[in-house]
Amino acid sequence: MTSSPLRIGIAGITGRVGRLLVEEVRLQDNAVLSGGTSLSKDIQNLSDGIKIYENFEELVKASDVIIDFTNAATTATHAKALKHSNVAWVLGTTGVSEEAQKLVQETAKTTAVIQAANFSPGVTLMIRLASELGKALPSSQYDAEIVETHHRQKVDAPSGTALAIGEAIAEARNVQLKDVKESGRDGVTGARKEGAIGFAALRGGQIVGEHSAIFLADVEEISITHKAFDRRIFAKGAVRSAFWSVGKPAGLYGMTHVLGLDPVQ
Amino acid sequence: MTSSPLRIGIAGITGRVGRLLVEEVRLQDNAVLSGGTSLSKDIQNLSDGIKIYENFEELVKASDVIIDFTNAATTATHAKALKHSNVAWVLGTTGVSEEAQKLVQETAKTTAVIQAANFSPGVTLMIRLASELGKALPSSQYDAEIVETHHRQKVDAPSGTALAIGEAIAEARNVQLKDVKESGRDGVTGARKEGAIGFAALRGGQIVGEHSAIFLADVEEISITHKAFDRRIFAKGAVRSAFWSVGKPAGLYGMTHVLGLDPVQ
Amino acid sequence: MTSSPLRIGIAGITGRVGRLLVEEVRLQDNAVLSGGTSLSKDIQNLSDGIKIYENFEELVKASDVIIDFTNAATTATHAKALKHSNVAWVLGTTGVSEEAQKLVQETAKTTAVIQAANFSPGVTLMIRLASELGKALPSSQYDAEIVETHHRQKVDAPSGTALAIGEAIAEARNVQLKDVKESGRDGVTGARKEGAIGFAALRGGQIVGEHSAIFLADVEEISITHKAFDRRIFAKGAVRSAFWSVGKPAGLYGMTHVLGLDPVQ
Amino acid sequence: MTSSPLRIGIAGITGRVGRLLVEEVRLQDNAVLSGGTSLSKDIQNLSDGIKIYENFEELVKASDVIIDFTNAATTATHAKALKHSNVAWVLGTTGVSEEAQKLVQETAKTTAVIQAANFSPGVTLMIRLASELGKALPSSQYDAEIVETHHRQKVDAPSGTALAIGEAIAEARNVQLKDVKESGRDGVTGARKEGAIGFAALRGGQIVGEHSAIFLADVEEISITHKAFDRRIFAKGAVRSAFWSVGKPAGLYGMTHVLGLDPVQ
Repeated sequence: MTSSPLRIGIAGITGRVGRLLVEEVRLQDNAVLSGGTSLSKDIQNLSDGIKIYENFEELVKASDVIIDFTNAATTATHAKALKHSNVAWVLGTTGVSEEAQKLVQETAKTTAVIQAANFSPGVTLMIRLASELGKALPSSQYDAEIVETHHRQKVDAPSGTALAIGEAIAEARNVQLKDVKESGRDGVTGARKEGAIGFAALRGGQIVGEHSAIFLADVEEISITHKAFDRRIFAKGAVRSAFWSVGKPAGLYGMTHVLGLDPVQ
Repeated sequence: MTSSPLRIGIAGITGRVGRLLVEEVRLQDNAVLSGGTSLSKDIQNLSDGIKIYENFEELVKASDVIIDFTNAATTATHAKALKHSNVAWVLGTTGVSEEAQKLVQETAKTTAVIQAANFSPGVTLMIRLASELGKALPSSQYDAEIVETHHRQKVDAPSGTALAIGEAIAEARNVQLKDVKESGRDGVTGARKEGAIGFAALRGGQIVGEHSAIFLADVEEISITHKAFDRRIFAKGAVRSAFWSVGKPAGLYGMTHVLGLDPVQ
Repeated sequence: MTSSPLRIGIAGITGRVGRLLVEEVRLQDNAVLSGGTSLSKDIQNLSDGIKIYENFEELVKASDVIIDFTNAATTATHAKALKHSNVAWVLGTTGVSEEAQKLVQETAKTTAVIQAANFSPGVTLMIRLASELGKALPSSQYDAEIVETHHRQKVDAPSGTALAIGEAIAEARNVQLKDVKESGRDGVTGARKEGAIGFAALRGGQIVGEHSAIFLADVEEISITHKAFDRRIFAKGAVRSAFWSVGKPAGLYGMTHVLGLDPVQ
Repeated sequence: MTSSPLRIGIAGITGRVGRLLVEEVRLQDNAVLSGGTSLSKDIQNLSDGIKIYENFEELVKASDVIIDFTNAATTATHAKALKHSNVAWVLGTTGVSEEAQKLVQETAKTTAVIQAANFSPGVTLMIRLASELGKALPSSQYDAEIVETHHRQKVDAPSGTALAIGEAIAEARNVQLKDVKESGRDGVTGARKEGAIGFAALRGGQIVGEHSAIFLADVEEISITHKAFDRRIFAKGAVRSAFWSVGKPAGLYGMTHVLGLDPVQ
């Protein structure tokens, strides 16, 4: 790696996060924007000299690292294009299918891939802490509940981040989330099942994202809460990951690696 | 009304609230326990001299006021027995059918009836404040969300108190709760509907009852939260209502009257 | 009042709120910016045609209403200039001295004055609700605590809004805030005094303003919380007040009048 | 260690925690209460056969482990009595002087000592998580604030547990708490100092203990909250520690060891 600026390419450059990524890359001293791809035809807002590639392979050739917040339909194609490319991949796309995920893992054998459902440092830490609590607090005594709040436009529940927190707790307890998930309680639900992980979703205003993981016992309660105030934080985390990828060996990494956190033991 | 102690009868005296009512009445200087009724056969725990009546009418005859936390199946019968009895009725039974509710109203033409879903002063105030916020904050800008937490044994969601809060907000906004209720979000829900009132339920530990009503706008959020730390608070409020009923004219009252609150305007 | 646009003048136009007021006025269809005054010499940022007056009296002559978020040193002068002017005064300056406040009241005999420590609708409602709780919940049982969080640059504590909430509770309880205020607990404080109103201040990040008023009893707790997400909300409330002043008789008004709220009884 | 029941002695048996310890020990199948010491003369409430020793040494001789929630004046004497005794020491006394603490460390060279400011599993975990956040989140960006709520009788602020949380964060940041502590903000405080750790104390009702550690950055916030609902939790943790001490080599341990947590790295 020379000291020349890092060439960052953005897949999905006209999306909500894509636009923030453009701004964030431009704030960096040691990076240049190599261009982007866009499924949208609405690219006139990207005036000032951003190169839009018709073809993802061409973007890869022009870049040292790709930041990718597109949709799950593109992941398999991107994985194939990045394999053997020696170009790093910062992957924030969610809802990736099992098959596509296998291709992601294949690609990670030949280049550095940093994959996360949420690139904010706070959420990364929160997931880690939730895992520690899940491990330390027996499910026979501590009922785990996850509640999240998002803006009124959000169309699904629970949020991907809430599910990632739930999966971390389930894994720490050696169970499958799908076997213990209680989401959307309404009507005659019956008593709470031992070991259940509950989910609740609030919607309103322009809340960027709030998540709480609560462990409720008979005589105490412990909880972790994260609030994101600005969507920009996800773009910042992705660009930080791009810089971190420089010189890293092939492998599948997460935000815990970027933040330098040790694995939960 | 002479200065002789108030004779309080308890319908459902072996229930969870019934037992607390016994303790609470015994703490009073100016009241005596006239006895109770019980659907349960488990009345051996009520040793020390409590008179259990087979027949609700007899309990009425022996009392100045009846406190009634039974189940909705008994309400019609109780209403008929109390009509023209000149005995006041503190009614905490929830889930009363429309027909039974009409009988309650008939009875209230001949004696004082104090009816509430929740006899804690704090919840009474909270419902009133939620109504004020519902009136003052337009539903086009302020999304109303209600979230409640209860112990792991609770079998239904949302709680009756959460629904009462929602109804107060709906009424303040001149809509029917059933038309705007969004409860138990899970999966692909679509964007939040304008004017919706959302409900979410958390379950865990031995939480007696926590309720929040949150109004979320683009640039601000205002919320009211109530936490009950001890089920005893409901018994205290019911006994306070019993004393308040003394000398009151026939009518249907709520906890707002007992607390001396003016109606929301 | 004709249908010509409302001429709004801004005292302190280069201040933090002043700049937001400029933006907000420009968003209005039925208002024009008549100009402003500034103690700062940093007026080059106000290029595009805003008229800066050396003299507050001239700004008054050119305006139908003045919005004034300056500092308390200017209030007496402004009060005199506005007296008999027939120009309304939206006054958001805090820390006004007792003498200057008397002049404000004098001016309010000749023109409409809308004065508030906080022009957000949510805080206005919150103060009102806190007053209701203060009135309904006896201080012998319900301990009132106020906690606020603001950005790390804030130099004083508690916030003006926290104090306004405390004053509303004190007034509802027929006491003077200065006699019951417990602020900044640290070290050996002794037990909490009955009837005290406690204050606590958190500082960090870029929090625009969060306030909670909490009433803590032995068996329950009720609280109200307000969060402002954007300083713009104060500018919006001030401009709304400016429009509301049109055609109003002389008098001293608050945000409760602007919002059409009935007084607490 | 044979299978004979564990003989637990309680120093300070008539204190608030002491009485709960008696109840807790009696709930155990494999433990007996060997007796206690009490500075109070109010020992008549301890009727049913508890042996009260005039002399701490005698209690030590009759016990396998001592649970000690007394006051800091006794710690030095207790340390000397336990040295070379082969009797374990569960030490919950707070405010221990530096000199006495040295004696505690001496004693720990000859027998197992488990010392903690708070014996609830939740608080132990919270302190650990706060340490991790302190290590992971740079103080130049993340402002740490600690807020606690306790019952109205509490005479000091911040709580010992709040200070323990603050010390964990300070240590993780390689600073001394005394150099960065901002407690009891009131009046003109100036802007928040970079790297400060803030403390705020709320008092009211019968709150057993609530603690939050909040890390506030410009674009996100992460916090951990613990609530104790019943003082019994401290007694439970101490008795659990007593059982854990069985067969342990000499050493100074904390609740993290009892809970089997790995050290923060």
